[in-house]
Order: sequence, then structure tokens, then C-alpha cells
Amino acid sequence: MNKPVLHIIKIGGNVIDQQDTLHAFVKQVSTLNEPFILVHGGGRVATGISSKLGITTHMVNGRRITDAPSLDAVVMVYAGLINKKIVALLQASGKNAMGLCGADANIIPATKRHPYPFDYGFVGDVNVRDIPVSRLSQFILQEICMVIAPITHDGNGQLLNTNADTIAASLAVALSETYRVNLLYCFEKNGVLSDAGNEQSVISKLDKAYYIILKEQEKIHSGMIPKLDNAFHALEQGVSGVHILHALQIGQLFKHGAGTKLVGA
Amino acid sequence: MNKPVLHIIKIGGNVIDQQDTLHAFVKQVSTLNEPFILVHGGGRVATGISSKLGITTHMVNGRRITDAPSLDAVVMVYAGLINKKIVALLQASGKNAMGLCGADANIIPATKRHPYPFDYGFVGDVNVRDIPVSRLSQFILQEICMVIAPITHDGNGQLLNTNADTIAASLAVALSETYRVNLLYCFEKNGVLSDAGNEQSVISKLDKAYYIILKEQEKIHSGMIPKLDNAFHALEQGVSGVHILHALQIGQLFKHGAGTKLVGA
Repeated sequence: MNKPVLHIIKIGGNVIDQQDTLHAFVKQVSTLNEPFILVHGGGRVATGISSKLGITTHMVNGRRITDAPSLDAVVMVYAGLINKKIVALLQASGKNAMGLCGADANIIPATKRHPYPFDYGFVGDVNVRDIPVSRLSQFILQEICMVIAPITHDGNGQLLNTNADTIAASLAVALSETYRVNLLYCFEKNGVLSDAGNEQSVISKLDKAYYIILKEQEKIHSGMIPKLDNAFHALEQGVSGVHILHALQIGQLFKHGAGTKLVGA
Repeated sequence: MNKPVLHIIKIGGNVIDQQDTLHAFVKQVSTLNEPFILVHGGGRVATGISSKLGITTHMVNGRRITDAPSLDAVVMVYAGLINKKIVALLQASGKNAMGLCGADANIIPATKRHPYPFDYGFVGDVNVRDIPVSRLSQFILQEICMVIAPITHDGNGQLLNTNADTIAASLAVALSETYRVNLLYCFEKNGVLSDAGNEQSVISKLDKAYYIILKEQEKIHSGMIPKLDNAFHALEQGVSGVHILHALQIGQLFKHGAGTKLVGA
């Protein structure tokens, strides 16, 4: 089995919000020797622009409730502003970046989430089995560096807001057929922390049993739970490596290690 | 010379602003038998959203002055909202649409316009000779229907607002090496009119000599002038056919003819 390596890198909204961090991240990620796909969120910027447009943002369990005006705002910010800024920065760093959302070339087929028991609005769930692996592989072979905004569509003309962590994990699982995939969740913390207040308390290796204990002890909570659920699911579905790390540690990850590595049972 | 046919279709802001017209246009354009590239503007929507965001839009000679906040607004609206809505509609009509801006895969290389004699701000001029024809041809061969937002970049990380008519003409010229290109300017009028107030006064064939006369008589003025300058330039540079027509006449153009056809000297 000599599959080529592919990195699928998710960067969180907090990294994007800070211009300096984003520039430094792009510089580091451009030094990777293997192809990569970048998946981004953009939370705080969207919230700020929505509020300027007079749109109230409702959140439940860390997830945005997406009504029609909120959808327009996230499409503008995620697929427009954030996506193209990252593309321009990567282009300036010598990577032939191409910004897409899930609707483009139908790369992330999705279905509108069922409104029961809770109606999240225009939110999409990824149809992992329908991801067009050969299409994505063609782009990678063409040395195109995809930058993916977390907007999908339902195939009937309706755009949908979709969780970026889930898109990254779904792509990682689908592309594991063809590639030895490293799924890297990059954010503003040094990794998964055993003590949320202490950036030095990084858990360097985390298995599922320990994760369950930390959840029960409420040392891991809120937004970290869906992220880790996605991450463990990806590992179980054949993704080669899953890491959770600070965005500015990506340059050293494959040299000296960094952040938290998830390990199988 | 057996070049394959390619349509490059520009749709104006007015078509996009009206949901019904846009849907009807997408339905018609999806029936074309040959591959096409769609280039869109998005003027009024951008102006509306800018004003909600507290950004004042300055126009000179029909061209937007793009300061940093205006640039963010047009990137959001053109490359985000409008682009992805069109992509989702085309996908629903069975076309494998992929929304890009000029920065993506570096498809429209550009240079920031010189600030003298007049500083238009973050506005890009297209480097026609650098358009990556083989890259675009690859996408067409992959049956990808490109939808292009008029945002470019300077190669150094700076996004730039760029005239959509010019992008369409530039693509038409560059791709004429490989394709028999029809350049179609679709908008809310029935064609080039000899009497601006009368939609029945469509000039069915327009050559450059007559164009110059109509300009001198001020029967053609304002936004129509740069559009026709672009269009005649494209014709002179080897584009096979150039038509100016109502967006909802595209379905009948190749059956019964429609709008204004530009003809050589």
C-alpha cells in the first residue's frame, strides 16, 4: 500500500479573525511538502457582519441557527471574504490555491438537516459516500490547492450552512480510499488540554477511553466535543493520522511533533 | 480548423438582482449544447449591502471607486453571495458548475491599476496574455461549468475589483487560441438600441463605423460604451462571434437569432 500523503487542514474562526496569525499560518502551511486541502470556518467575522446588516445570530449548542438572512451572511463571509483572502495569500506564497464551497463542482454533496427534533434552519449534513473522490483527486494531481468554505447545497438550488469540522472529517474519510490522509484541526489553543485554563497541559496522545473520562469529568466540553467526535470518527473510518494543534505549530508538526495526536483503541 | 465551440456569457447586475429573471436565465442557459463559462457582475446588490454596512459607494464614469471597505463588500457579494447562488441554481439544472473568482487557480492574472491620472483604488486590470488557457481548457474537458466573479488579485496577496465585461472579453480573446468562442453580453435590454427609449429599436448588426456614428450622435452612451469597446476589441482579436442581447433571449439566440450581432469592418 503506497498511497500518497494528503493533509486535510481545518482552521478555525479565531485564527482567521487575527490578520497576523492568518498570515503566519499561511506562510507555515505553504512550506508543507505534500499536497493539502484547507477547510476554514469564519465564525466571528460572520457574526460581526451579520450584526452590521441587522441580522441577529442565534446559537444553540455551539451551532448557528441559519435563517435565510443569516445564510446570505455566512455565504458572503465564508465563501466570499474569508475564502478569497486565504486564496490570495496562498497564491502569494506560491501555492496555486483555488477557493471552493461545497456546492462548487458538487464537491460536498449534502442534505438539509431534518427539522425535528430541532430546526437548525438552512443547515446541511454531508453525504460522505457521495463525495466525488476522483474529481478531488484530479484537482490534487493538477497541483491545485483547494481552500474550502463550509457552505454546501442540496442539489435543488438551496445553499446550506455546514459545520467546517464535519466537512474536514468527511473529506478525510472519503479521500482515505486514495490517500494516506492526515487530518489536522488547527485552532488557537496548543491542543487538547487536560486543564482548559493551562496552555501547558496539552495531552500529547489521546485515545477514546481517556476522551470519555475527560468528557465525564467535564474537562472537555462545549465546542471541543463535536470536534473530537468528528476526529475520532475519522480515525475509526481509516484516516491515517488525526492531530489537534495550534495553527502556528503546523510548521513543526512533522519535524518535532505538536499538539494532541489521537490514537486508536 | 476544427476548434470546438465555447460560449463565454456575461450577465449583468440587473439580471442578477431579479430572482425570477435569474432563475429563468439559468434554465435557458442550461439547455445550451456546447460548454460555456459564465461571468457575472452584481452591481446593485453590492451597493445595497455596502450601504447597510455603512460603506459609501463612489462611482466615476460608471466604475466603482474601490477603497478597502468597498473591496470587502464586493468580494463578499460577487465572489460569495451571487457566485454561489448561481452555482447552486446551475447544479440544480444539471450543470456541474464551479464558482471561481480570478484569484482562484490564478485564472485571471491582474495588476492593480496605476493611480494616475485617477485613483480607482483596489481595481485590477487583466493581464490577458497570462491567462492560463490550458488550465481553463482542462476544466472544460472535465465538464466543469465555470462561473466567474469579477474579483482578481495582484499575485502579492491583494484582491482587486475588476470589470466583469473586461474579464469576459479577456477570457474570450485568450480562449480563442483553442476554441471557436462566442462572447455573449446578456443584460436587461433587447440589444444595442438606436433609440434608447424604444426596446423595439434593436440594431441587429452593428459594425464599428456605425458604432462610432451612434457614439457621436450620443445615441450610445454611458455604460454601453466600455461594453461595446470591450466587445469590438474582442472581435478584432479573433473571437468568432460577439452578441449583445437580453438575458432571456439566450435560449433562442442560436435558433432564430436575437439581439445585436457585432460584425467586422
